[in-house]
Amino acid sequence: MNRNDVTEMIIGVKIAKSIKWSDVAEQVGLSKEWVTAGCLGQMTFDATQAAKVGEVFDLPAAAIALLQVVPYKGSLITAVPTDPLIYRFYELISVYGTTFKALIHEEFGDGIMSAIDFKMNLAREPHAMGDRVSITMSGKFLPYKSY
Amino acid sequence: MNRNDVTEMIIGVKIAKSIKWSDVAEQVGLSKEWVTAGCLGQMTFDATQAAKVGEVFDLPAAAIALLQVVPYKGSLITAVPTDPLIYRFYELISVYGTTFKALIHEEFGDGIMSAIDFKMNLAREPHAMGDRVSITMSGKFLPYKSY
Amino acid sequence: MNRNDVTEMIIGVKIAKSIKWSDVAEQVGLSKEWVTAGCLGQMTFDATQAAKVGEVFDLPAAAIALLQVVPYKGSLITAVPTDPLIYRFYELISVYGTTFKALIHEEFGDGIMSAIDFKMNLAREPHAMGDRVSITMSGKFLPYKSY
Amino acid sequence: MNRNDVTEMIIGVKIAKSIKWSDVAEQVGLSKEWVTAGCLGQMTFDATQAAKVGEVFDLPAAAIALLQVVPYKGSLITAVPTDPLIYRFYELISVYGTTFKALIHEEFGDGIMSAIDFKMNLAREPHAMGDRVSITMSGKFLPYKSY
Amino acid sequence: MNRNDVTEMIIGVKIAKSIKWSDVAEQVGLSKEWVTAGCLGQMTFDATQAAKVGEVFDLPAAAIALLQVVPYKGSLITAVPTDPLIYRFYELISVYGTTFKALIHEEFGDGIMSAIDFKMNLAREPHAMGDRVSITMSGKFLPYKSY
Amino acid sequence: MNRNDVTEMIIGVKIAKSIKWSDVAEQVGLSKEWVTAGCLGQMTFDATQAAKVGEVFDLPAAAIALLQVVPYKGSLITAVPTDPLIYRFYELISVYGTTFKALIHEEFGDGIMSAIDFKMNLAREPHAMGDRVSITMSGKFLPYKSY
Amino acid sequence: MNRNDVTEMIIGVKIAKSIKWSDVAEQVGLSKEWVTAGCLGQMTFDATQAAKVGEVFDLPAAAIALLQVVPYKGSLITAVPTDPLIYRFYELISVYGTTFKALIHEEFGDGIMSAIDFKMNLAREPHAMGDRVSITMSGKFLPYKSY
Amino acid sequence: MNRNDVTEMIIGVKIAKSIKWSDVAEQVGLSKEWVTAGCLGQMTFDATQAAKVGEVFDLPAAAIALLQVVPYKGSLITAVPTDPLIYRFYELISVYGTTFKALIHEEFGDGIMSAIDFKMNLAREPHAMGDRVSITMSGKFLPYKSY
Amino acid sequence: MNRNDVTEMIIGVKIAKSIKWSDVAEQVGLSKEWVTAGCLGQMTFDATQAAKVGEVFDLPAAAIALLQVVPYKGSLITAVPTDPLIYRFYELISVYGTTFKALIHEEFGDGIMSAIDFKMNLAREPHAMGDRVSITMSGKFLPYKSY
Amino acid sequence: MNRNDVTEMIIGVKIAKSIKWSDVAEQVGLSKEWVTAGCLGQMTFDATQAAKVGEVFDLPAAAIALLQVVPYKGSLITAVPTDPLIYRFYELISVYGTTFKALIHEEFGDGIMSAIDFKMNLAREPHAMGDRVSITMSGKFLPYKSY
Repeated sequence: MNRNDVTEMIIGVKIAKSIKWSDVAEQVGLSKEWVTAGCLGQMTFDATQAAKVGEVFDLPAAAIALLQVVPYKGSLITAVPTDPLIYRFYELISVYGTTFKALIHEEFGDGIMSAIDFKMNLAREPHAMGDRVSITMSGKFLPYKSY
Repeated sequence: MNRNDVTEMIIGVKIAKSIKWSDVAEQVGLSKEWVTAGCLGQMTFDATQAAKVGEVFDLPAAAIALLQVVPYKGSLITAVPTDPLIYRFYELISVYGTTFKALIHEEFGDGIMSAIDFKMNLAREPHAMGDRVSITMSGKFLPYKSY
Repeated sequence: MNRNDVTEMIIGVKIAKSIKWSDVAEQVGLSKEWVTAGCLGQMTFDATQAAKVGEVFDLPAAAIALLQVVPYKGSLITAVPTDPLIYRFYELISVYGTTFKALIHEEFGDGIMSAIDFKMNLAREPHAMGDRVSITMSGKFLPYKSY
Repeated sequence: MNRNDVTEMIIGVKIAKSIKWSDVAEQVGLSKEWVTAGCLGQMTFDATQAAKVGEVFDLPAAAIALLQVVPYKGSLITAVPTDPLIYRFYELISVYGTTFKALIHEEFGDGIMSAIDFKMNLAREPHAMGDRVSITMSGKFLPYKSY
Repeated sequence: MNRNDVTEMIIGVKIAKSIKWSDVAEQVGLSKEWVTAGCLGQMTFDATQAAKVGEVFDLPAAAIALLQVVPYKGSLITAVPTDPLIYRFYELISVYGTTFKALIHEEFGDGIMSAIDFKMNLAREPHAMGDRVSITMSGKFLPYKSY
Repeated sequence: MNRNDVTEMIIGVKIAKSIKWSDVAEQVGLSKEWVTAGCLGQMTFDATQAAKVGEVFDLPAAAIALLQVVPYKGSLITAVPTDPLIYRFYELISVYGTTFKALIHEEFGDGIMSAIDFKMNLAREPHAMGDRVSITMSGKFLPYKSY
Repeated sequence: MNRNDVTEMIIGVKIAKSIKWSDVAEQVGLSKEWVTAGCLGQMTFDATQAAKVGEVFDLPAAAIALLQVVPYKGSLITAVPTDPLIYRFYELISVYGTTFKALIHEEFGDGIMSAIDFKMNLAREPHAMGDRVSITMSGKFLPYKSY
Repeated sequence: MNRNDVTEMIIGVKIAKSIKWSDVAEQVGLSKEWVTAGCLGQMTFDATQAAKVGEVFDLPAAAIALLQVVPYKGSLITAVPTDPLIYRFYELISVYGTTFKALIHEEFGDGIMSAIDFKMNLAREPHAMGDRVSITMSGKFLPYKSY
Repeated sequence: MNRNDVTEMIIGVKIAKSIKWSDVAEQVGLSKEWVTAGCLGQMTFDATQAAKVGEVFDLPAAAIALLQVVPYKGSLITAVPTDPLIYRFYELISVYGTTFKALIHEEFGDGIMSAIDFKMNLAREPHAMGDRVSITMSGKFLPYKSY
Repeated sequence: MNRNDVTEMIIGVKIAKSIKWSDVAEQVGLSKEWVTAGCLGQMTFDATQAAKVGEVFDLPAAAIALLQVVPYKGSLITAVPTDPLIYRFYELISVYGTTFKALIHEEFGDGIMSAIDFKMNLAREPHAMGDRVSITMSGKFLPYKSY
């Protein structure tokens, strides 16, 4: 059994029992963004969190143990994603990548926005012309320093 | 002369004259995110906007004309970006891509977040442990419908 | 079991029972184009549609549940398709891609033709020199707007 | 001078003189789809057509000669196009490719839709919820025959 | 069971029983080139041909049914083939590709040699300095026409 | 100046003077297939042949010298060719590659058809349903031998 | 069962029984280079050789039959090998490739060194500063000839 | 001016003056293999060697200086070489790579054949059936050691 | 059973029994860096070391035998690693690669740092602003020598 | 002029004047590792540092301005580097990547070693069996935290 198998188990049970990601998150007591990423094999749960996830999805002990091991991360099958929803995010980087770079450097100087010390929130934004997806990202700025 | 040449002209003048993207945006009267993307060759200006950009950067008439032609978009040189700042955004999709997909589908059903009917705001978020980059994205949800 | 397995089940039964895609579509009460795409793992059925598809192909309950989950889309194995029929469509984009771009921008300005808010119809066009395949596509135009 | 140079000349003059593709097509006396593809370096003009195109865009004799030479076709820079408008067409093949295959084979048997003996028409389809792009393709069906 | 499984079955029986491709072809009553391609999963047999192939290789009914379904074509594992025999053909295209293009266009104008309306014959050519492989290909010329 | 430059010179003069490949071949006294490949930068001319080619295309001495140097071969820009005419040949290998392999091994045993000790002839084959392109290839069979 | 399975069987038994490649070669009565390549799935054994290999590794009849079928050759998993030992050979081609080309053409004219009519010998070369690997390759020169 | 420019200069003069690589090597006083690799931009000459090469090819001072700077190595344009002569070496690694690995490990244990502490000799091997290319390589074995 | 299977066995037992890599290393009596690489399928153990590893992880005899066979090395799934931790090392090469090259050549001349005759130590470096990862690498310099 | 041009200028002057990287570093008053990376176009100098670098290499004002603009980072031409010295570092990641991951996670938990808050030192390590390259890296550990 490896972490991929655990992810497939979780998805299988989720469909069979019609569990919602937001409910899992509530039971674990953390954000739906982080908990979903963990259930999809990208984050590491601690013992208490893993036990709770195991309870929700009826996971065997070996699966609960695997949830506590740091996974080999990366959830896409191809360098350029084929799924239309995920591709739109890739397109945003393709079109706006140099804009992100220009504006962050103008504001902060040379460095990066951390993808590790990072939080995100995803919500529905009601709108008369059709509801919108609203995503707020917050990542620590890490400057390059000379030495 | 092509749109790339216009982008290089703009960057050359920007460095020589120490112009800030946010000042250009103010003069054009639009957000710094959209105006920067336009100056970097990803968006199409209308005649008035192009004239203003041309004024700020002392562009010749042919360059101002090119700013009004829809460009072949895509600002990255390689499928997986090499620049560390831009790569972090790619990594976010690699790690959180299936999470975006799972949560948006849970909230909205099958469909995508538009990368066209899309706005974004990038700001500094002061923080005691080191300031953070805050990015808010808002894109219209477009559902797949059966027919 | 995952969505791929469901697709393989459907194809297996289709061959064994000589079911036609157009008959499935009629039973589901929607176009043959959309229903075929759904049976091939690219679209999401609602509960009634999934039940009908399950009936036609004798699918087990778990498969019917999976038909209602949004799939990871993308039906090609390689970036450039190897199948001669599908390659001809790729070639059309390769040869006519910039033409599509030029003519749509001339007619509509900067933006895209939606691949989500999209319909298509495929039909036989009788012709003395050999019948033709006729495909009509209709996608909403989504403009880029400045902000 | 090569065909690419001719394409760049044509685009340069087109921007400078605000020429429309549909006007060029009218002057040449053929469809806007085929004429645009030719001007963008994908089709071969005969002597009369090339002379007309040369007149519209003030091309030198060497350029007019090149318009009559069969070009090395393929208008995209990368296997997966980066431009959002052109990508949507690639996505349609990615999502609907096997559907095209299934339905054409159901109707016609084994074979392909020709991308050579092929016509296409692109038009605006007015719609209350936002206008649509309508594309109709017609390609001869070519069957595989045993021998 | 899918078409690949059928191909592996056929190859397994062929080795076990020392069947020759040319004998299969004779029994089916068609060329060895087309029949071999069909047995290797690239062509579609009709009911009579499939029954005959099934008889020769002792195939189960489900396999015989699959032989009558149009396959996803493409017999190579990688874009550039690794097998030395098949690579030599790829090398011929790499070295002579533009020559094919130049000479066919000189003779026929703009268009292609069909790979669908196509026949081929492969034979031994005795030669004092070592026998040669002789391949004759014949494909219909399909012209691009303006519209 | 490199061999590519010589190829471009030759093509330029060919267009300007409406020279045919078959006429060049006749003047050089060899097949049109080999001479065209040489003019397109894939073969090495000897001093007499190079002088003749230089005369036909008014080449400078340095170009004539380069025609006698073994070139870095390979006439395609991408691993999978984008030009429709050349792609059809690639498709033939993709579809028939394992068939070539199976039939040549059945006839000759393990080994290859040489792409070096190789000749080819390309001709028009008149046909009531539309003329055909006929290509005859002849390559020496080279066996693998144990040692 | 396919040829890969036979290779895995051979390697399994080799490890379990501590068989040396050079001993297998001695029993087969051929060079260790060719016999090892054959055992690793790259060469075709005749009936006597296959029987001997089968005896050494306790192979079942079906495996012995497969050893006599020409395999799809190519022993590397990726275009650029990841294994450090094999990569060094790739690096030699990367660094010395154009040198091989220049020197062979200087000595022999246009043509290639055959990789089919080819022998190789690999031996230990004792040396005070550390022993060396010595590899001698001998391949027939095949000239391109005009026709 | 960069190292590539120096390589092109050397090749230009070599053709114009009909200089042979073996003569250059003799003048430099080293092997033709190493000197050719150096002239083709893969090795670093010391001051004396560079001066001699500069004399042979009439190089300017800046070029002679560049010959003494360690170059960015790698002489191939694509990961899989397209030139038939160089490809044959790649094919040898593809077919015999795992054989090299198996035999070197059998003889020496875990480690590699150095591609740095490496020598090579390329010679004509006269043969009644056609002369052969003989290449002898000698590289130091470097063992992996545990620590 | 192959080496990959052994690696998965080891990881399975490690999780189930909460074994630490540093404890395994201590028991084997070598560095944690080398022993971990070996357990992850990249290094070759001798009989004593393999027996010890087998004891720690309860491995069957066949697995212990496989630990003593030189593996096909390479621990990454894609050319550019997707895991954020491993990617950071790739990024260091992308950003500092030419710096490594420039400084090593300045200090040592043309040659490489061996990745075979190589040792490494990885340790925690306590720091008031957050602990740091400290890695010390030591590889023998191997000079290119002329011959 | 862009940053690449500045890098080429610096290298040109460095060769012409025999400047050492360590001397530049001394003049700038920072480590040779960081200063070299900056001169090679990977880091951003402040006004004082840029002025000093400009003085050392006689750079024009525009070049000195460009040294102060954050560059698009990434110093390698291909995803897998072809230069043997740089490749060895890539090989270390390929072979030891999962080992880095396993040991860092064992010591620190889930997270990464920063490639931004990072220092490095490169030195000669004298050794009786041949001197060694010693590289010490120190990067801040950044933990993933749940939210």
